[in-house]
Amino acid sequence: MSDAVKYLLDETHLPKRWYNLMADLPSPPPPVLHPGTLKPIGPDDLAPLFPMSLIMQEVSTEREIDIPEPVRNIYRQWRPSPLFRARRLEHALQTPARIYYKYEGVSPAGSHKPNTAVAQAFYNKEAGVTRITTETGAGQWGSSLALAGSIFGIEIQIFMVRISYDQKPYRRAFMETFGARCIASPSMETSFGRQVLAASPQSPGSLGIAISEAVEVAAGRDDTKYALGSVLNHVLLHQTVIGQEAIAQMDLANDYPDIVIGCTGGGSNFAGIAFPFIGAQLRGGKKVRVIAVEPAACPSLTRGQYAYDFGDTGHMTPLARMYTLGSTFIPPGFHAGGLRYHGMAPLVSHIKELGLIEARAYHQIACFDAGVFFARQEGIVPAPEANHAVKAAIDEAVLCKEHGAAKTILFNLSGHGHFDMQAYQDYFDGKLSDQSYDERELAMALAGLPSVPA
Amino acid sequence: MSDAVKYLLDETHLPKRWYNLMADLPSPPPPVLHPGTLKPIGPDDLAPLFPMSLIMQEVSTEREIDIPEPVRNIYRQWRPSPLFRARRLEHALQTPARIYYKYEGVSPAGSHKPNTAVAQAFYNKEAGVTRITTETGAGQWGSSLALAGSIFGIEIQIFMVRISYDQKPYRRAFMETFGARCIASPSMETSFGRQVLAASPQSPGSLGIAISEAVEVAAGRDDTKYALGSVLNHVLLHQTVIGQEAIAQMDLANDYPDIVIGCTGGGSNFAGIAFPFIGAQLRGGKKVRVIAVEPAACPSLTRGQYAYDFGDTGHMTPLARMYTLGSTFIPPGFHAGGLRYHGMAPLVSHIKELGLIEARAYHQIACFDAGVFFARQEGIVPAPEANHAVKAAIDEAVLCKEHGAAKTILFNLSGHGHFDMQAYQDYFDGKLSDQSYDERELAMALAGLPSVPA
Repeated sequence: MSDAVKYLLDETHLPKRWYNLMADLPSPPPPVLHPGTLKPIGPDDLAPLFPMSLIMQEVSTEREIDIPEPVRNIYRQWRPSPLFRARRLEHALQTPARIYYKYEGVSPAGSHKPNTAVAQAFYNKEAGVTRITTETGAGQWGSSLALAGSIFGIEIQIFMVRISYDQKPYRRAFMETFGARCIASPSMETSFGRQVLAASPQSPGSLGIAISEAVEVAAGRDDTKYALGSVLNHVLLHQTVIGQEAIAQMDLANDYPDIVIGCTGGGSNFAGIAFPFIGAQLRGGKKVRVIAVEPAACPSLTRGQYAYDFGDTGHMTPLARMYTLGSTFIPPGFHAGGLRYHGMAPLVSHIKELGLIEARAYHQIACFDAGVFFARQEGIVPAPEANHAVKAAIDEAVLCKEHGAAKTILFNLSGHGHFDMQAYQDYFDGKLSDQSYDERELAMALAGLPSVPA
Repeated sequence: MSDAVKYLLDETHLPKRWYNLMADLPSPPPPVLHPGTLKPIGPDDLAPLFPMSLIMQEVSTEREIDIPEPVRNIYRQWRPSPLFRARRLEHALQTPARIYYKYEGVSPAGSHKPNTAVAQAFYNKEAGVTRITTETGAGQWGSSLALAGSIFGIEIQIFMVRISYDQKPYRRAFMETFGARCIASPSMETSFGRQVLAASPQSPGSLGIAISEAVEVAAGRDDTKYALGSVLNHVLLHQTVIGQEAIAQMDLANDYPDIVIGCTGGGSNFAGIAFPFIGAQLRGGKKVRVIAVEPAACPSLTRGQYAYDFGDTGHMTPLARMYTLGSTFIPPGFHAGGLRYHGMAPLVSHIKELGLIEARAYHQIACFDAGVFFARQEGIVPAPEANHAVKAAIDEAVLCKEHGAAKTILFNLSGHGHFDMQAYQDYFDGKLSDQSYDERELAMALAGLPSVPA
């Protein structure tokens, strides 16, 4: 029997700087536009929502940005996170491929999300902010911001998509244990929420609606700011500690990936593992195939349009050019709640346009097949989101077997599935299905994209 | 703000040997007796249930027992586990005490239990065993043996206390994800189970009943053995990696505990952190106060008798001298399911008799108060069992404040509470109560202890 091999860095190897892919790109992404004027927005347009330090990171083109020491001190609780060689999985697949995975489930909130939650809470605290609003779907992001708020003494108010609020009471209890307040969205606490409820009293909610509610609250109060768990440049930036550590750990293993894989909903987990490798390649390093994996039921990268769109349903956000299914698109119910977003991070969308990454989509049953197979070999039960990356890694390893190619595959295991056991139970009970979105609804959502002259 | 400080050992410091407290005791514990003859049992009496390698560990008086390399290879996935200095907790308590905690929640099953599950599965595999039966209450042990079974390719059959089976479907799904089979106990699969159900068709089950069922199945089949997650000497032995690592980590911190704290149900978590420190003291090292913390609703160490008793309800096990509430004692419902056992490990009971440890009992609401306070400072949500240790550590730290004493406190945080969020929800909803056992029922259970001439 082969065993898992762990590559652990000591704390002196905790990254001192975040890596900004913007600095190494051959061309910048298109500007973000004001929805009224259709002119590029400036930092001041974002000031009602974010502290200026985060806004400056959002627009920065510096290659490296110092991680404040208080943030590194908190990262140290679980970072550097381990990187494993999946020897038992390789053995079970009888593949010549070498499979590695970076494991972000070791954070106290159980996923990669605290990497940015802690940073965002720090900058807000520094700016004197006493309350942060946000939205959460699956709950990974809400849990992480709740954790960060408890550390920095900031009040956290979370608009939780109604259907998750009802279906995932344990995720809610977890956030409340950290002292956060969860509100089912759509709610009566915002005018947008009241508007949605007036039109549709039984609305199950959506991430787009919850974002609108959280933004509305933050925009209306001086002591309150808003935080987003993915999509934005500064969020992706904070996640690059993952890939930077992975590069050092692959070096420890005396290896380097041919293929890097991450699941992608808003894009932050994918960016975290992938951007440092793509940057190294752009600066003349070894070429890597980078694969973004998304759910077939919400396939922005593989079936969306690269177009200007709103980030939310209430159209309170600026317009960003990104792969989008349209801000009115509501994906069918599937269990990887963290991947149920209509758009894709503008920076991830841009490098897809530049041909720097591939994308593929999987249905959920095949992902659970892969996740359970992985759990039985490697002993870790992945979150449903992470199962998409597991599935792609296994598919690539099987291809290696068929072609007799001893490739090196690295994927990010973004979180554990401890709060997702209902999904596994449904899988075992044969209750899962591979629902597709309605093609006509997608066409309508795309037809409704805002018109922006080229 | 002060931050958590992590003391991490690299893999070269993973213990090579388990530590056997038996070697350093001034007197051996009383012998285990055959329930029919009342004569001391020998290794052969246990052979139907356990592989001989584990039986020899059960009776060993060697100070150190080599950890097989395949077991160490699996330990490496999460060991050495981190030891933290709880600076944020100290700060919040305004205490001069230094508080450290060893964190076992980093294991793939989320608690200390895999330390012995992996070892037991290894020895069973080596002995050609193809199936292991066991019982589980809260599910920490069942999850860990399920994990170990998946690694070694052994079929795992888990008798899960009926009330937990019904109330904790997610814990069950977790075990099934690793490929184990869970059976609600009492079941129709054993003659003892059928007997219980005939007398009490709605029986909620108990650990004592589930043990009897698992033992019955193993005793009846050559290819099947039984595994226990606590109480027995060899189980406690396997947990001593915790305390050995903690000694090395306290050394890294340039500190040494004045007080060592562990929660205790069957005794394995407590032994894991405490025995190496007690052994060092017995060999002439620094004296430490060692505190075992148990639930006030199931207080074997503080309210039980030190007497010979059965380990199970069906009276299929040998008789061991231990602190016991009587094998027919059924504790009231409380959330720390891992601490709901009528007896206490004979070795832990023996050192209590020798005056080497203190014991105290807490009701559950005070423990949840402590656990939530801890989570908001340190970012980790503890299992309800571990909250007992957290509560004692906080109480000791508050005493230090009152007395102006800068003591060093170390406790074991045996697991995370990710599968126990219903308990936290009940706590937040004000639905928890501090139920006590019925004094008359305890008296009856104690009156029913088997009669063993001195």
